[in-house]
Amino acid sequence: MTESSSESKQIEAFRSFKLVRLLNEDTGTKFMSLLGKIGSQDAIIVAEKTAFNTSPEILAKFQEPSNLSALTMLGQNDIYHWFLASHSEPDNEKRPEIKFTFIYPATETHIKKYSRQSLRMVTETPQLYRELVKPYMESTRVGGRLNWVYNILAHQSEAEKIVFEDTDEHEGFILLPDLKWDRKTLTSLYMMALVHRKDIMSLRDLTKKDVPWLRRVGHKIASAVCEAYPEFESNQIKLYVHYQPSYYHFHIHAVAISHDGGLGQTAGKAFLLGNVISQLESMPNEESSFADIELTYVLGEDSELWQTVFKNL
Amino acid sequence: MTESSSESKQIEAFRSFKLVRLLNEDTGTKFMSLLGKIGSQDAIIVAEKTAFNTSPEILAKFQEPSNLSALTMLGQNDIYHWFLASHSEPDNEKRPEIKFTFIYPATETHIKKYSRQSLRMVTETPQLYRELVKPYMESTRVGGRLNWVYNILAHQSEAEKIVFEDTDEHEGFILLPDLKWDRKTLTSLYMMALVHRKDIMSLRDLTKKDVPWLRRVGHKIASAVCEAYPEFESNQIKLYVHYQPSYYHFHIHAVAISHDGGLGQTAGKAFLLGNVISQLESMPNEESSFADIELTYVLGEDSELWQTVFKNL
Repeated sequence: MTESSSESKQIEAFRSFKLVRLLNEDTGTKFMSLLGKIGSQDAIIVAEKTAFNTSPEILAKFQEPSNLSALTMLGQNDIYHWFLASHSEPDNEKRPEIKFTFIYPATETHIKKYSRQSLRMVTETPQLYRELVKPYMESTRVGGRLNWVYNILAHQSEAEKIVFEDTDEHEGFILLPDLKWDRKTLTSLYMMALVHRKDIMSLRDLTKKDVPWLRRVGHKIASAVCEAYPEFESNQIKLYVHYQPSYYHFHIHAVAISHDGGLGQTAGKAFLLGNVISQLESMPNEESSFADIELTYVLGEDSELWQTVFKNL
Repeated sequence: MTESSSESKQIEAFRSFKLVRLLNEDTGTKFMSLLGKIGSQDAIIVAEKTAFNTSPEILAKFQEPSNLSALTMLGQNDIYHWFLASHSEPDNEKRPEIKFTFIYPATETHIKKYSRQSLRMVTETPQLYRELVKPYMESTRVGGRLNWVYNILAHQSEAEKIVFEDTDEHEGFILLPDLKWDRKTLTSLYMMALVHRKDIMSLRDLTKKDVPWLRRVGHKIASAVCEAYPEFESNQIKLYVHYQPSYYHFHIHAVAISHDGGLGQTAGKAFLLGNVISQLESMPNEESSFADIELTYVLGEDSELWQTVFKNL
């Protein structure tokens, strides 16, 4: 199958999506997720409005009548005026208004992930981790569920997106744009680094011995981002890991510090790499690890982990 | 002047806006603010993309070709496909894509309010803390700058707002609504606890010895919030401290977990009380403290601390 016939097939599938219900929406970030059917299979459409194009030449012509149509006033109070308008960009350079992620076929896990959920704070003790959470994590790594990660690491998919690679089996990692990023808007730059080693499920597996490695990886990620996008200096890039992460192969997020990443960057989900490192350093001996300490974090009530472990505690 | 002639006058002013510069943008919320001139006067345009229309009849026709044009695939991996598209709504019912706030004439205060504060990641070593940051903190505690806190602690102001108090001089604290909270909308509940002891400027002053006290305070805050607002269970309340805080008298934030608090809750600014406690616990001895470790956090370029300490490093 040629690439373009694959593309038209995917577009055809997307077009034949029949809405079942709205899963979630956020009016702050202008996002929504829809559950639908394609034939008998589940599929999910995640739609997000694109950000403004703030390049100077576009902005200079922003409010001209040819670009802003149907300008109407909603109201006025003193020096404040409110308008609504429709918009297109100058010079026939129409900018897409929506970015989609289309998941097809979708499983129950995907449906949960994109559904609105209630949140809970949980306190995961070392014992709870060992006895219940770690076995849960291990159960998610079998049956090919990490194949998409291994495909990337083996250059079998998304190879063309790789921004930087350190190929060393133990030291190395692959840096590429996160799916959430449109790969254009620098202020929302969002990359991820997948490490080559496969023995780290999450930050729980990091020990004090890993500190020098983590420092090197952090520096290399920041340098590679700044080399690929020279608009950034390294202290304008935020590096963090998630706990709980959405998949259990160790990876580090690298985002533009200006990007408000919502829940994914909040305390209780995101742990800054710098603070992970210094916390490991402050531990008493080389074998000390995040497996030994209590971790407090936020969990969705629909998550498997809440349902199987924390709900009944 | 009739209403419609006033409206056309405002639209004319809006149209004659000449861009001076981009003040701020946020790709998460799809927002931007522009500074411009209308004649010799300053004006500000605040533009925000509109959220999706999620009414069932609109959603049902969402991905039809007449409504989504220029659908193009960005990429694909396994079950994930990414598209971009332009959008209009069915039945010629064009929805405005942008909501504007137009501020004219604008003052310097408006310009500051809508300007971006550039952010930087900083790494504060124990030495940097001791030699430069701690003296800076101390300098902000003199000359009556903390009187507003001491007034609250002495019941000389805001006494009517107190939700709970533990009056013990060493153990105790006062819990009251944060000024940012409207005291009505439960999903954005935002309280703060000011401790009675005056010897802790920030989390840097916490030692391993403080762990039992911090645990008691945390439990008491969560209980008091849930008693005052029985809609909440204690694991729906998030407790955290800021580093850097905006004033140097130790205080703990207590917010509804559903509340997206923006920058104030992101990793690199907010440290969950639970993780502060467990980090202290993992330190080697009773005198160990946050003063001994490296802290990575986010700082605004306009902040005094950036200007006086970090900018020139």
